[in-house]
Amino acid sequence: MVKGRLEAFSDGVIAIIITIMVLELKVPHGETFAALTPLIPVFLSYILSFIYIAIYWNNHHHLLQAVRHVNGRILWANVHLLFWLSLIPFVTAWMGENQFAPIPAALYGAVLLFCAIAYLILTITLIAHHGRESELAIAIGRDFKGKVSLAFYVVGILLSFVNSWLACGIYALVAAMWLIPDRRIERTLVSENLSNK
Amino acid sequence: MVKGRLEAFSDGVIAIIITIMVLELKVPHGETFAALTPLIPVFLSYILSFIYIAIYWNNHHHLLQAVRHVNGRILWANVHLLFWLSLIPFVTAWMGENQFAPIPAALYGAVLLFCAIAYLILTITLIAHHGRESELAIAIGRDFKGKVSLAFYVVGILLSFVNSWLACGIYALVAAMWLIPDRRIERTLVSENLSNK
Amino acid sequence: MVKGRLEAFSDGVIAIIITIMVLELKVPHGETFAALTPLIPVFLSYILSFIYIAIYWNNHHHLLQAVRHVNGRILWANVHLLFWLSLIPFVTAWMGENQFAPIPAALYGAVLLFCAIAYLILTITLIAHHGRESELAIAIGRDFKGKVSLAFYVVGILLSFVNSWLACGIYALVAAMWLIPDRRIERTLVSENLSNK
Amino acid sequence: MVKGRLEAFSDGVIAIIITIMVLELKVPHGETFAALTPLIPVFLSYILSFIYIAIYWNNHHHLLQAVRHVNGRILWANVHLLFWLSLIPFVTAWMGENQFAPIPAALYGAVLLFCAIAYLILTITLIAHHGRESELAIAIGRDFKGKVSLAFYVVGILLSFVNSWLACGIYALVAAMWLIPDRRIERTLVSENLSNK
Repeated sequence: MVKGRLEAFSDGVIAIIITIMVLELKVPHGETFAALTPLIPVFLSYILSFIYIAIYWNNHHHLLQAVRHVNGRILWANVHLLFWLSLIPFVTAWMGENQFAPIPAALYGAVLLFCAIAYLILTITLIAHHGRESELAIAIGRDFKGKVSLAFYVVGILLSFVNSWLACGIYALVAAMWLIPDRRIERTLVSENLSNK
Repeated sequence: MVKGRLEAFSDGVIAIIITIMVLELKVPHGETFAALTPLIPVFLSYILSFIYIAIYWNNHHHLLQAVRHVNGRILWANVHLLFWLSLIPFVTAWMGENQFAPIPAALYGAVLLFCAIAYLILTITLIAHHGRESELAIAIGRDFKGKVSLAFYVVGILLSFVNSWLACGIYALVAAMWLIPDRRIERTLVSENLSNK
Repeated sequence: MVKGRLEAFSDGVIAIIITIMVLELKVPHGETFAALTPLIPVFLSYILSFIYIAIYWNNHHHLLQAVRHVNGRILWANVHLLFWLSLIPFVTAWMGENQFAPIPAALYGAVLLFCAIAYLILTITLIAHHGRESELAIAIGRDFKGKVSLAFYVVGILLSFVNSWLACGIYALVAAMWLIPDRRIERTLVSENLSNK
Repeated sequence: MVKGRLEAFSDGVIAIIITIMVLELKVPHGETFAALTPLIPVFLSYILSFIYIAIYWNNHHHLLQAVRHVNGRILWANVHLLFWLSLIPFVTAWMGENQFAPIPAALYGAVLLFCAIAYLILTITLIAHHGRESELAIAIGRDFKGKVSLAFYVVGILLSFVNSWLACGIYALVAAMWLIPDRRIERTLVSENLSNK
């Protein structure tokens, strides 16, 4: 089975998810800067989620490049990932409209956690299909970043109930880790994470 | 006529249908778990419909792989399928917001039934164009699952007026039948369905 | 310049237009059949517009198949067509929510008229680029249907102020003319149209 | 890394942005022409933004044609552009619903300015990857239009607080400059802009 339509469908769904979030930026009635003020937390959560979805598209793009063929199991692992990504607009809006309150911030982290688990399942399914010696398996490697992210999300969810801004700081930190392509930062984060446990 | 744009257009429409459903998950005003409670039936119907649309994309993907060329009749049979699929977000939201009440559950089943009929028409149109001896006709085969699903939807619609939760259980069962690629389960369901009549 | 992205972008925009119309089918609050009654005109106008947008996608698909190369002028003629198509969801909802009242029905016809004019401009621009002797020019031919449609839309718009249901009947007739691939029906419609003048 | 999915994802996001703006044209309750009157500024701002997004798609299309290969930096420069474009529906609706009031008009100009800066960053990133002697670098050239546009947006933002209609006239002028492929007009605008400083 060729991968063309898997990529096209994923691109379509991810493009819609990243774009419909802007519909939650409800147009205010006033025409002053003051009318925009209540939108600031909504806008901040929009930026964070936009970056997260872009990271997933980016990683999905890289991952699929090394893929040679797909099967039914892979199609479903991919749909499973898209399902969790599709919930990001909802939790983004809930968190933004409640000024990063504890429970919305925890739910946001939980959705990020399930996205990360779904991505991990997708990579495992792909490796199972291509073989442990394949170019794909070598390209994915030990996937430190992915596993560190999982741990960080759990820390973030727990922190939400203590200080939800700190939790969102953790989520932003994970996003930054994926954005900055410096290997040393990655290693530092890994060791920091290990010492946090 | 080549099939490239037929696939691209279908991918686009299905990607949008599966994604805009999340817009019906209206962001609650409160910031507590209690604020999320009324959303549970909406969320359950979202999951069911997400799986159904993913199944249709999956099957469409498999079906089109064996297609060699398309004509005007096939384009319209495909648009007809997309029309019924496009109604899923509406019936999903209606069913979810009314806690799986009888009439919404029956209408949900009716839309699933028409989607299945439209899919059947599409396969018949494709076979008529490619010939009964074509690779496509052999790949589709006798299409047991498709015909069993039709019968189950009718049972579900009728059951809605008796017990709408049972009806939704039937819809979930059909979805599970498409998800689980075990041939024995498929045969069991066929015989169960026959003994139900 | 290759035509690949022109097709991809048009497919994307048309797929979104045809799908977001369903968002105007606002979920009713009641759970009875009676709750659906006010939606009937909205649903009828949805079906009509769904068919129209599918016809445009279909014709666009056929038209672009004979296209060999594109230039800036063609890109803009295409964007101009997409602009008018993008207004269809708005006029569809306005007409549906006002039970096919005169002015909404006239505006609906006006948008259809401008879509048809934009399509005509696109074909003229394509022929100007490919030459009068090109395969494309021969494929388009004298474009009877296109010109008859223009006349019918004008008749429909004028009729809206007399009897708006009759106007919508005209719009439905034009759609049927494009759906039914019988050449004799086409000729009959042409002569009827001529005798109407 | 090939550019196929970068184009497909960008096409998807831009197609959605250009189309969801029409959702801000809220269907009025009355059925008269008078009911449409309050929508006129919203519609005017819709047209302006539709043209702007079409220009960006057009330019993106031209730019990517000369691109041979992409890297992670380019993917992110592209996502950065899509982020600013994704804000256009919001500022369009805010400006339209407030009849082109000063602050909404200034914010609209600011988003246009950031889109233009993001586009400039994308071209610089592409040239850095392809080399100053590449076909791409030559095709982009000195990019007079791009730099003039930046200056005009700043002028427009400042003018918003004096006369917001004049500011919108400036934005429309910049759009016209990109639409009209006459080199003399371009040069005239450049010299006018220089004499304005």
